[in-house]
Amino acid sequence: VTEKKPVANTQTSDKRFLRALRREPLDRPPFWLMRQAGRYLPEYRQTRAEAGSFLQLCLDPPRATEVTLQPIRRYGFDAAILFADILLIPYALGQELSFREGEGPVLDPVRDLAALRRLSTEQLHQVLAPVYETVERLAGALPHDVALIGFAGAPWTVATYMVQGRGSSDQGAAKHWGYHRPDEFQVLIDLLVDATVDYLDAQVKAGAEALQIFDTWAGSLPEPHFRRWSLEPMARIAKVLKARHPNVPIIAFARGAGPMAKEVAAVAEIDGIGLDTSMSATWAAREIQPLKTTQGNLDPLMVVAGGRAMEAEIARILSAFAGGPHVFNLGHGIVPETPPEHVGALARQVREWRG
Amino acid sequence: VTEKKPVANTQTSDKRFLRALRREPLDRPPFWLMRQAGRYLPEYRQTRAEAGSFLQLCLDPPRATEVTLQPIRRYGFDAAILFADILLIPYALGQELSFREGEGPVLDPVRDLAALRRLSTEQLHQVLAPVYETVERLAGALPHDVALIGFAGAPWTVATYMVQGRGSSDQGAAKHWGYHRPDEFQVLIDLLVDATVDYLDAQVKAGAEALQIFDTWAGSLPEPHFRRWSLEPMARIAKVLKARHPNVPIIAFARGAGPMAKEVAAVAEIDGIGLDTSMSATWAAREIQPLKTTQGNLDPLMVVAGGRAMEAEIARILSAFAGGPHVFNLGHGIVPETPPEHVGALARQVREWRG
Repeated sequence: VTEKKPVANTQTSDKRFLRALRREPLDRPPFWLMRQAGRYLPEYRQTRAEAGSFLQLCLDPPRATEVTLQPIRRYGFDAAILFADILLIPYALGQELSFREGEGPVLDPVRDLAALRRLSTEQLHQVLAPVYETVERLAGALPHDVALIGFAGAPWTVATYMVQGRGSSDQGAAKHWGYHRPDEFQVLIDLLVDATVDYLDAQVKAGAEALQIFDTWAGSLPEPHFRRWSLEPMARIAKVLKARHPNVPIIAFARGAGPMAKEVAAVAEIDGIGLDTSMSATWAAREIQPLKTTQGNLDPLMVVAGGRAMEAEIARILSAFAGGPHVFNLGHGIVPETPPEHVGALARQVREWRG
Repeated sequence: VTEKKPVANTQTSDKRFLRALRREPLDRPPFWLMRQAGRYLPEYRQTRAEAGSFLQLCLDPPRATEVTLQPIRRYGFDAAILFADILLIPYALGQELSFREGEGPVLDPVRDLAALRRLSTEQLHQVLAPVYETVERLAGALPHDVALIGFAGAPWTVATYMVQGRGSSDQGAAKHWGYHRPDEFQVLIDLLVDATVDYLDAQVKAGAEALQIFDTWAGSLPEPHFRRWSLEPMARIAKVLKARHPNVPIIAFARGAGPMAKEVAAVAEIDGIGLDTSMSATWAAREIQPLKTTQGNLDPLMVVAGGRAMEAEIARILSAFAGGPHVFNLGHGIVPETPPEHVGALARQVREWRG
C-alpha cells in the first residue's frame, strides 16, 4: 500500500477519543456507535443501493468513504470507524463469499486441512487494497477533531463463519472442529492471526489512528477455549501491532466475556475494553476501568425505544464510568430499525454531559 | 391437585443431589444434565412419536413420566427433572401455543394491555393438572437415591416468548415493550410471578424435592433491567416458595448473568446457582461457591465431540469446584446430535471421580 501522507502522531493528538485511550482526564467522554454507518440511515441505504452488493460497497473506496462519513456529518461523533466487514479477510484468503439479502453472509465452508491449504495470504493486500484506499481517503477527509478507527474481526469469530459457512446460533461447526482436532483448528486460528496483523498494519499505514478487534462470539467459549482461541490470538495480534505502532491504541471487544474481561484487560498491549450490553457497569468500573479505558455499553434496543428510558440509561452509564477514562458507545451494533432522531438525542445528551 | 402421598422430608434425605444443595461434604458431586430427557435418545424419539405433538407429550402423564425416567435408567443420574416445557405457563394462562417441527414454539403474541387482560390464572391448575400428575407418578417411580426436580421458566424468559410470539435472537419485542412502557410490561412480569409461584408450589405438593428456575435470556438485559426483570422476579418467587416449603432447595439459572451472578447468589432463598458454558469456573469457585452451591457448566457441544477433549473438560470442571458444594451439569441443554455413548462416558467419569 502506498503511503500518501505521514501517519498522524497519535501520541500527541488532542483528539478526544485518543486522549480517552491515553487515560487523560476529560470534561466529557468521547463517543461513537458500533455500526454507526448503517441501514438505519436513509443516506446509507441510498449509497448502498447505488453500489450494487454489500461486498461491492465494502470494496468501493469512494462509496465506502461516503458511508463512513455520513454519521459523522449528521451527529458529530468523536470517532469514525472504517466501513468494511469482518469477512473481508476470509474473502482475501480465497474463500468464496456472498451476502444474500435477508440471509446474511454465505461462505464455502472450510472444515478440513485440505480446504485450509487452499487458503493463502498471497493475494491478501491485493484484494484488500480498496479498503486501504478508503482509509487513506478518510484520513484526508475527516474533521480535524474526529479520530479514525480501523478494525478487524478476531480470529475466533471470523473462524466461526469460515467453518460454519454462515452465521450460527451456537458456533457448532467451529467448536466441533476445535474440540475434536484442536491442532488442525489452531492452524486456521494462526493463519487468521497472521492475516489480521497484516491487514491492520496496512490500515495503520494508510492512516488509521486506533484499532478495534471484534470478538462477537467470544462468549460462547468455555474458560480454557476462551483463553486459547479468543484471548491469546487477540493478545498476539495486539503485541505485534504495538511493537510496530506504539502510539496506536487497540480496543478489544470480547462480547460475552463476563468476568474474563479482566483477563483481556490484563494484556499490556490492549488499551481499551469494549463492554457488551449485559456487562454490569458497576463491576466493570471497579474491575476493568482501573486497568484500561472502558467502552460501551448502551443496549442498541434502547436507541430504538428512545425517550426517557434511553435518557435514563445514558445517564446511568455516563455516571457509572465518570470516575475514569471511558468511551461512550453501544453494547452491540446499532440495529436497522433505529429512528435516526433517537441517535440525535443520544448525541446531544452525551455532548452536553459534564461528569 | 390431590396429594396422594406425603411430601418427602428433604431436609434429612440422604440423596446426593439434595445433600450437595445443603452444602454437605461429599466424596463426589451429584450430576444430571439439562434437557437429559430429549431427542438424542432413540427411546425418547419413539415415545415422542407415539404421543403426537410435543405439547401432547408434555401433558400426557404416562408418557411424560416415561421420558423423564429414560435417561435415569440409562445413565443413573443423581436427579431426574420433570419433563415439561417453560411455555406451558403461557398456555395455561390462555395464550395460543403450538410447536412446529423445525420452527420451535409459536404463540399468539401478547403486546398490549388488552391482550394481557385476556390472560388469566383461573384455569391454570386445571390445564396443568397433567403435569402435577406426572410429578406424582415420578415421585413414586424413581429409584430411592434419585432426587426429583420440578422447574419453570423465569418470568423474563417466558415473557420474551409471549411478546415475540416465538424465539428471537435479541428479545427485541419484549425489550421494546419493557423499555417503552415499563409499567405495562411489569403487569406481565407480575402475572408470571404469580402463575409461577402457583405452578411450582403445586409441583412441590405433588412430590418435587427441588426446583430450578430457568432464565435463559437473562444475559441480554442491561444491568438495571437484569435486576428488575430477571433477578427481582426470581427472588420474589423463591421467597414465597421458601416460606411455604423451607426444605425444598431452589436453583436459579440466569444464563449470561456474568459478574451479576453474584447478586443472584446473594438472594437468601436461592440455594444453587446454575452456571452457563462461558462462565469462568475459576471466578465462580472463588466468588459464587462460598455463598451457594454451584451447578454446571460443561459445554453441550463438548459432549457431541466426546473423547479426550470431553474428558479433559470434565476433569477441569470437577477440579475447579472440588473445594466446595457443586452439582455437575452442562452449561446449557444437551443437543439432539449428541451420541448417547458420550453421555455414558461422561456419567462413568463423574461417578468415578474422587476430588
